[in-house]
Amino acid sequence: MSFFAAMRFLILMATLGSRVTVVRIPASIYHRWMMIWHLLLAATTLAQDTPTEREAAHDVIRKMGQLETSLDVPALVAKMTAPNADREKTAGRARELMEKELLAMADDITKHPEIGFEETRSVGILTAYLKKHGFEITPGVADLKTAFVARYKGSHDHPALGVILEYDALRGTKGPFHGDQHSAQGPVGMAAAIAIAELMERTHAPGSITVFGTPGEEMMPPVAKTQMFDAGVFKGIDVLVRSHSSPSTQRPGAGFGSCCLNIDGVKYTFSGAPSHQMMPWDGRNALEAVIHLFVNIDAVRASIRPEARIQGIITEGGAAPNVVPDRTAADFYIRYPDEVYLAQVREFTDNAARAAALATGTKVKIDNYGRMRDGVSSATLAELAFAYMKHFGGTKVDEAPGKPQGFDETGSVSSAIPGIGFSAATTNAPYHTYGMETDALAEIGHQGFVVDAQAMTALLYDFLTRGDYRAAVQKEFDGIRVLFDEYRDSLRKVYKNPEVPEPK
Amino acid sequence: MSFFAAMRFLILMATLGSRVTVVRIPASIYHRWMMIWHLLLAATTLAQDTPTEREAAHDVIRKMGQLETSLDVPALVAKMTAPNADREKTAGRARELMEKELLAMADDITKHPEIGFEETRSVGILTAYLKKHGFEITPGVADLKTAFVARYKGSHDHPALGVILEYDALRGTKGPFHGDQHSAQGPVGMAAAIAIAELMERTHAPGSITVFGTPGEEMMPPVAKTQMFDAGVFKGIDVLVRSHSSPSTQRPGAGFGSCCLNIDGVKYTFSGAPSHQMMPWDGRNALEAVIHLFVNIDAVRASIRPEARIQGIITEGGAAPNVVPDRTAADFYIRYPDEVYLAQVREFTDNAARAAALATGTKVKIDNYGRMRDGVSSATLAELAFAYMKHFGGTKVDEAPGKPQGFDETGSVSSAIPGIGFSAATTNAPYHTYGMETDALAEIGHQGFVVDAQAMTALLYDFLTRGDYRAAVQKEFDGIRVLFDEYRDSLRKVYKNPEVPEPK
Amino acid sequence: MSFFAAMRFLILMATLGSRVTVVRIPASIYHRWMMIWHLLLAATTLAQDTPTEREAAHDVIRKMGQLETSLDVPALVAKMTAPNADREKTAGRARELMEKELLAMADDITKHPEIGFEETRSVGILTAYLKKHGFEITPGVADLKTAFVARYKGSHDHPALGVILEYDALRGTKGPFHGDQHSAQGPVGMAAAIAIAELMERTHAPGSITVFGTPGEEMMPPVAKTQMFDAGVFKGIDVLVRSHSSPSTQRPGAGFGSCCLNIDGVKYTFSGAPSHQMMPWDGRNALEAVIHLFVNIDAVRASIRPEARIQGIITEGGAAPNVVPDRTAADFYIRYPDEVYLAQVREFTDNAARAAALATGTKVKIDNYGRMRDGVSSATLAELAFAYMKHFGGTKVDEAPGKPQGFDETGSVSSAIPGIGFSAATTNAPYHTYGMETDALAEIGHQGFVVDAQAMTALLYDFLTRGDYRAAVQKEFDGIRVLFDEYRDSLRKVYKNPEVPEPK
Amino acid sequence: MSFFAAMRFLILMATLGSRVTVVRIPASIYHRWMMIWHLLLAATTLAQDTPTEREAAHDVIRKMGQLETSLDVPALVAKMTAPNADREKTAGRARELMEKELLAMADDITKHPEIGFEETRSVGILTAYLKKHGFEITPGVADLKTAFVARYKGSHDHPALGVILEYDALRGTKGPFHGDQHSAQGPVGMAAAIAIAELMERTHAPGSITVFGTPGEEMMPPVAKTQMFDAGVFKGIDVLVRSHSSPSTQRPGAGFGSCCLNIDGVKYTFSGAPSHQMMPWDGRNALEAVIHLFVNIDAVRASIRPEARIQGIITEGGAAPNVVPDRTAADFYIRYPDEVYLAQVREFTDNAARAAALATGTKVKIDNYGRMRDGVSSATLAELAFAYMKHFGGTKVDEAPGKPQGFDETGSVSSAIPGIGFSAATTNAPYHTYGMETDALAEIGHQGFVVDAQAMTALLYDFLTRGDYRAAVQKEFDGIRVLFDEYRDSLRKVYKNPEVPEPK
Repeated sequence: MSFFAAMRFLILMATLGSRVTVVRIPASIYHRWMMIWHLLLAATTLAQDTPTEREAAHDVIRKMGQLETSLDVPALVAKMTAPNADREKTAGRARELMEKELLAMADDITKHPEIGFEETRSVGILTAYLKKHGFEITPGVADLKTAFVARYKGSHDHPALGVILEYDALRGTKGPFHGDQHSAQGPVGMAAAIAIAELMERTHAPGSITVFGTPGEEMMPPVAKTQMFDAGVFKGIDVLVRSHSSPSTQRPGAGFGSCCLNIDGVKYTFSGAPSHQMMPWDGRNALEAVIHLFVNIDAVRASIRPEARIQGIITEGGAAPNVVPDRTAADFYIRYPDEVYLAQVREFTDNAARAAALATGTKVKIDNYGRMRDGVSSATLAELAFAYMKHFGGTKVDEAPGKPQGFDETGSVSSAIPGIGFSAATTNAPYHTYGMETDALAEIGHQGFVVDAQAMTALLYDFLTRGDYRAAVQKEFDGIRVLFDEYRDSLRKVYKNPEVPEPK
Repeated sequence: MSFFAAMRFLILMATLGSRVTVVRIPASIYHRWMMIWHLLLAATTLAQDTPTEREAAHDVIRKMGQLETSLDVPALVAKMTAPNADREKTAGRARELMEKELLAMADDITKHPEIGFEETRSVGILTAYLKKHGFEITPGVADLKTAFVARYKGSHDHPALGVILEYDALRGTKGPFHGDQHSAQGPVGMAAAIAIAELMERTHAPGSITVFGTPGEEMMPPVAKTQMFDAGVFKGIDVLVRSHSSPSTQRPGAGFGSCCLNIDGVKYTFSGAPSHQMMPWDGRNALEAVIHLFVNIDAVRASIRPEARIQGIITEGGAAPNVVPDRTAADFYIRYPDEVYLAQVREFTDNAARAAALATGTKVKIDNYGRMRDGVSSATLAELAFAYMKHFGGTKVDEAPGKPQGFDETGSVSSAIPGIGFSAATTNAPYHTYGMETDALAEIGHQGFVVDAQAMTALLYDFLTRGDYRAAVQKEFDGIRVLFDEYRDSLRKVYKNPEVPEPK
Repeated sequence: MSFFAAMRFLILMATLGSRVTVVRIPASIYHRWMMIWHLLLAATTLAQDTPTEREAAHDVIRKMGQLETSLDVPALVAKMTAPNADREKTAGRARELMEKELLAMADDITKHPEIGFEETRSVGILTAYLKKHGFEITPGVADLKTAFVARYKGSHDHPALGVILEYDALRGTKGPFHGDQHSAQGPVGMAAAIAIAELMERTHAPGSITVFGTPGEEMMPPVAKTQMFDAGVFKGIDVLVRSHSSPSTQRPGAGFGSCCLNIDGVKYTFSGAPSHQMMPWDGRNALEAVIHLFVNIDAVRASIRPEARIQGIITEGGAAPNVVPDRTAADFYIRYPDEVYLAQVREFTDNAARAAALATGTKVKIDNYGRMRDGVSSATLAELAFAYMKHFGGTKVDEAPGKPQGFDETGSVSSAIPGIGFSAATTNAPYHTYGMETDALAEIGHQGFVVDAQAMTALLYDFLTRGDYRAAVQKEFDGIRVLFDEYRDSLRKVYKNPEVPEPK
Repeated sequence: MSFFAAMRFLILMATLGSRVTVVRIPASIYHRWMMIWHLLLAATTLAQDTPTEREAAHDVIRKMGQLETSLDVPALVAKMTAPNADREKTAGRARELMEKELLAMADDITKHPEIGFEETRSVGILTAYLKKHGFEITPGVADLKTAFVARYKGSHDHPALGVILEYDALRGTKGPFHGDQHSAQGPVGMAAAIAIAELMERTHAPGSITVFGTPGEEMMPPVAKTQMFDAGVFKGIDVLVRSHSSPSTQRPGAGFGSCCLNIDGVKYTFSGAPSHQMMPWDGRNALEAVIHLFVNIDAVRASIRPEARIQGIITEGGAAPNVVPDRTAADFYIRYPDEVYLAQVREFTDNAARAAALATGTKVKIDNYGRMRDGVSSATLAELAFAYMKHFGGTKVDEAPGKPQGFDETGSVSSAIPGIGFSAATTNAPYHTYGMETDALAEIGHQGFVVDAQAMTALLYDFLTRGDYRAAVQKEFDGIRVLFDEYRDSLRKVYKNPEVPEPK
């Protein structure tokens, strides 16, 4: 974290230098500057957390630089953000909806928090509003009670625009609360979707607009967006947008990555045989098994690269002290910066479980109930979104490009469909705090939500109406996906298991 | 278990032989026989489960034989059981109460099972009945909601007779059930208590009769009888009786011991420091601590005598896999045949917990929430109870004296106050089964409960009315207590910790 | 140990009683006495150490009693030990050899101790002497440098008599020493073998006499006698005798068993991959593997019957602290009273090793380098040997029959060929002490060695010359072997693995 | 490693840029460039391996930049390296000694490798040569048999120049070998020392020259240089030089640091109580203790910052499988990038040992037999040394400044006395290889050794003759030491132990 902060500082200085020199120093020098800048940029804006990853990514970084250079994103953004009254009008409609009705709705949802997969009241409010504005609702998609799809009636053509809504609250010690401001995502997304829908209606522009209600962002299992993606819910969508609250107006980097490492959520369940404590040899102890799952993992921590994070809890630890426990379970989050070595880490932890069962005469079931992976982030979308957030009044602007990460927390959707998250400043508090909930009801929250709604509308306007922009987005997205594959291939070559000879 | 069965077989043969030879072989031979018989008897009827214990008990066994010989229990029993119409009449009153009202009450309680410390309905029924028959109720004694004392009004003198009732059901997977037939103990005990109370009323015999309602026999913590004893509830009582269902009409051995080893119930609670999984070094992992409590205990299992039984469960194993667990807990039953070495075993397990905390940077709290210890069993009471159970029709008679064990499961009461449990055959099923619950409602149960009620009444009658019997009971009880102390002293000399030199 | 001591005490009393009563009490009483006596005898003289074993052996014990009763050993011994001048003369020749030459040779070997498999000097002395007395030497049998066979020239017929010699010294902290007096076994056995050889020569009695030099009794691997047996070295021998020093003149019990449980000696070797400490993830840690072999075994100690003894050491624990260890090894002795459950214990320990390898990404080799098993001991041989040892002046006589155990420490030979060990008192020190070495050179040692030599000669005389005796020995041996098989079958039914369902 | 490689690449590019721009772009731009360059330089050339360290070092980095800027090292180096015939002549004398005698001596020592603390032959050759050239030898200093001090006779004044020699070989599987070319360090250092001694003689320049023979660089314990330093052997010396073979001509960075983290070498010895395997409860198992030392460390690996490297071996793992082990030992290298957090890591590992003893009833001795710490490296010495190595023909020049690290492997000496190591390219093989030994005898080795000898002579010449240079060296050294202290203070504030509340 502090490492990236340090790197950003260097980049800012370099950027400053380059700007000054643009007009004064010869092209050859400028060219060198740019190379350095791109390298530094690439170094931070790719997902390479470890020396090994950075080494493996050497070529990919270079090609990513070439890709970005070829797209000339600054010029593209300049072109798109040129004055356009119609776009301003459409964005203005989103602001109007927010101010008249939707900020109040956001406040209401904030005050009635519901945790993941139980957001029935919130979903009722959102779908009623969408229905009223001409959207057709398909509830309970992908076997998720509080997931829904709302397609604007009659819209079916390409470009197919999608807006993702979230609405689940956090689990607090004092009950559910909206400490991550998901309460406002529904109103923000609906403001944009309705403004665009009305635009389509008005202009008969080809295209469609669909709203996706996605439950339980803060929980797994199930991994809602992955389950929806696997069920084909997002099929045919050309671009997806989403808003998310933030302590600053953020500028996502381009590339692939995730905020908090790639994650496997795994449950290990052991069965043994019960027996009275007086004759334990007639039983098989499932508690010893789950204990030795942990002990076995500890035994190989030093044999696993130090960037891994393996953490578990014991969810079932036996029923009574005078009976040999015959059923126990543990829940693990297993993380690594990249999914290639993560698979090796999983092999270690799964073998730890198998070994625990083998040693204790018990049996184990391994359930990989959830996966979080790198998503894709495009500069063509991110830089335009950033420009619009600033344009519409985003405060506390952070110019430094962040680590790239997809617009969805699972990576399932964002690695398959281009898209972007809008994060105008909406709070002075850190993530996941009661302060953030308070800010959702305050001026800072309201102001930021309206910025997000307008910026989202403006970007969707451009995507709907400008074929050149769509082409650039698609070109970049395809390019990054190819590089992402190249990167994983490269990692696969690096991460070899050491050879262990037969003992003599 | 099978070992003791085998030994009993030998004893029976020897006993048989001795009886036959009494009149036919010379005194010297008879003397030898008796020595062997006493040795064999002592070998089984004392609590010495291990070679070390048997060696330490060598002198105690000899003195126990002398004590029993000096009491001449068979002659005493023969004297007490001589025909007595008044005793029969009193016992008959107990049978009458059973048959008229109390078997039905037992059935009712059987059908409305309540687990330990929640037996409010059962206690309501029992105390109402006692009140109706002239007992004064003190509810909620010793801070236990469903414990009570019921003293027969006006009775306050010595001999002070006490009757222990139990009424808690088992915790079954399908809810509470009376698989140990505690449901009948209230009715049986009340029948005897009321019959004796009416006798006192009628004869103005000096003495008092008190009924003790003791909850939660099947659960700890709290250890109800110990808590009641420590609160002085049983103070001043001269003899205590209790019934308990059984698959056979049993003959308890004399001495000290427990059914299932001496037990310490201990809860180990660990506190650490929470931290997000991404930065676990900012936390201290309480789950690792509790895991290593188990691992540390396993590490010394081979250094602990093999008769120990140490078994635990993890009752709190962490809250969420992405947060370093900051609080965990384990619950252990720690058992050993004698309490002297049990203290050494506890030192091992407590050190295992302290070491786990030390190694993981966490803290531990050790809560020894319950203790089960050897109780005292007197032949003067046991042999008379056995004779009466046979007299009143006890079926499935097992003539072999069982391992001595006190009349209460904690040893707290039975090692301090003389007493006896009545166990006429009341079931064809093993302990702790649904079959036993069914039998409580059937003829076999009813028949045995009535036997217990009458035998209990008869023994209380003798104790109330015969000073010579009370003196013999007291002499034996005092003698066994002295030997019990001697035995523990002897063990303390045997169980030395090995000397460990400083490492060089 | 103390348990058996206690039981012996009871038996002695019973035995004493029975003798007295034989003439005085009626047959019915005597009969009961005898039943008890046999039961008690069986209880001690079989190898059943655990309740489960005793239960499984119930029928076998009964049949063993029937077998022994049918043989009427006391009568057989009385018949054999009747005065016989020729036998005395033959035994006298053995004494003469001892006194003239062989005690001096024993002293010499005592003073030049050589540890197992390095006894070249001792073997040289012994074989030279045998050669001089007409034996043909085959050195280095069964691939053991210091093993040999010495067959008396021309002798080839049945009955084939065999004498086992041992000569290895103990490994002391100050070098090899004869703290177990194996130094005298060669001289004792040779005295008997030569006396018998000369008898054959003189009488032309059919039969043969062979001396077996067996190295390394105190060491494994290799397990010398098992290796010799497997190589067919003892093929065709009808009876084997051996002497062994002892603090008392001992009376071995009849049946099957071993002194110190059945044993598997197992070496576990792990291989990993080396790596510098700075990058341990490029290696696989074989030290963690061997550590977790121990930890895994500890994890199931409570799931293994408490009579097991599993103890190991780490013989290779890594080479340098800054390199991930790529090779480690542990050496275990795994013991259980019977070989049937021992196989289950081995499955636990082998799985502990496999699990350790699986969890750590290493590989394991399992080498069961040695096995010690129950041997067979026959009353027809033991009681006659005991009678002769007393006859020739054995001191410090212990009348109580010991736990049955074969005449060889591995059980390989003694469970296949009838035989007996002679243990007249030769020392006042415990086994494996410097005191025992000193006594080998003193009067107490010399006196006992001469007793052993004569008793051995006398028994071999009887076996050579008396067909009825040979038949009785064979009948008992065959009977015990059948019962041994029955016992193991019975155990196999008892020791079931608990069923473990698939986890849900 | 690859991370630093990547950073160097960036720096090289930036450096290249700056050179070009120096003459073309305005001062303001140049100034910015320089700031960036210094930041980047600082980022790599300080010892901050972790984000936390870099954060803690923020101010120190800035001040280090100021210090280096104030010294204007490039100008200093330019001034010192200006043509000087006398210096060239002196360096030429060193070359002459190498070519005439000392390369042959190096070859001889290479061919007669001796491992650490056994280098008697090598020391004999070196001291004889020094004696012949007027040095007075003090052998066996600091209780180290193969350590020595050789002071040039009559020289006693300041500046006091010191030359460190090493001569130990590596421990190979096939015996000792000179795979790190220490064999040449004696000749190289002596060539310089004698050339300077002759200069002093000739010019009567005030000052002294002392040669330090330091054994066992590749081994501990003992940590030879620390032991010598603590014994005052280096007292009063103003500058120390040393050569070391290298695959390239290296340019050490300025600051403080170590090649391979700060290290504590610790031996943990456990004592228990022995007992036969049959009665393990009479013993205390020291093997379980050492095993649980490892297991306890594994339990907290996730609670320790991931840059730690903790690796151990079991050096004593028990004597025999049938005896409870009563003595075991483990040897650990414990590493962390800085010594402040290393102390916390040590607390974890020491507590792991204490907890293992507590849990197993054994005792532990903790012996911290060796410490390796950050040393100080000065640009005033390093840049001049680098310039001279290039001047005298150093090949395979690596212009990128390396991570700063002291001239001695322990840090004890280099953090107290200014000094520098000379590393001209002398091999094509990696460190610690047979290839490196071969190269010591080949042209590439010989050529490099002669470069080192001359460069060392030249730098000593400057230090001896130029007060301004000495002042600059001292100023930098003092400044870095102050910053080093500041850095450690800053770290002490960062590394807090988490608060653990009492469990409730």
